[in-house]
Amino acid sequence: MKQNLHLITLGVRDFKKSYKFYTETLGWKPASASQDDVAFFQTSGVVFAIYPREKLAEDAKISTEGSGFPGFTLAYNAHSEAEVDEIIRDLKSKGVQIVKEPTKAFWGGYSSYFADPDDYRWEVAFNPFFPFDENGNLKAQN
Amino acid sequence: MKQNLHLITLGVRDFKKSYKFYTETLGWKPASASQDDVAFFQTSGVVFAIYPREKLAEDAKISTEGSGFPGFTLAYNAHSEAEVDEIIRDLKSKGVQIVKEPTKAFWGGYSSYFADPDDYRWEVAFNPFFPFDENGNLKAQN
Repeated sequence: MKQNLHLITLGVRDFKKSYKFYTETLGWKPASASQDDVAFFQTSGVVFAIYPREKLAEDAKISTEGSGFPGFTLAYNAHSEAEVDEIIRDLKSKGVQIVKEPTKAFWGGYSSYFADPDDYRWEVAFNPFFPFDENGNLKAQN
Repeated sequence: MKQNLHLITLGVRDFKKSYKFYTETLGWKPASASQDDVAFFQTSGVVFAIYPREKLAEDAKISTEGSGFPGFTLAYNAHSEAEVDEIIRDLKSKGVQIVKEPTKAFWGGYSSYFADPDDYRWEVAFNPFFPFDENGNLKAQN
């Protein structure tokens, strides 16, 4: 198994609400492969998808029951502290719940968090130690 | 906020066990930015990371409590059905829990799932509708 991750799918409780959040609030464009109850979003290197929670649980052979911290976070890296502030200001003006205001992080960066409709946590950060390559992909200093 | 996702971090209950799983069982190479309690893995377009669950919850301003289905899945797309079989056979021989044996999927592909040490679910699939680009990235037909 090569060192790769191609797709991350969030199981969402209210598909229409989440679809609206990602397409209207964040302004992302769904790929043509999207269907009635699944939406794919092509990012620079991974496909991000939303899908009804109970269907995802069924596909992954697990009970749909689950509560509390899901145990993962997603992160968006901005190019500067000012861009972090700008993104969070914009999301706040659209009614998005900001769970952590932009602040200096112990690891030397600048970080904030917002919650999506299922309370999945997105970090918006500036990390001076993770440079971007020419395609806008984050490089973890291989 | 551009249509991008740069990093996904799993909060793991036993860091050493998970580190061993990803570096030895899967054979992935950690990036030099990794430290004692955080490991980064550069994939073709997204950085995948593991970090202690309680620290991740603290960073994301959420209670560490949580149980059951975490509500997300990660997927690895192989280039053929035979490659899916081969990967699953290899993982099984290493003692990895296969939660869904490779099988034809209703959407026209070929899919299987394994569980990582925290029971996070990884799908290994062949999807004839999601072609790869020249960099090995999955394309969701934008």
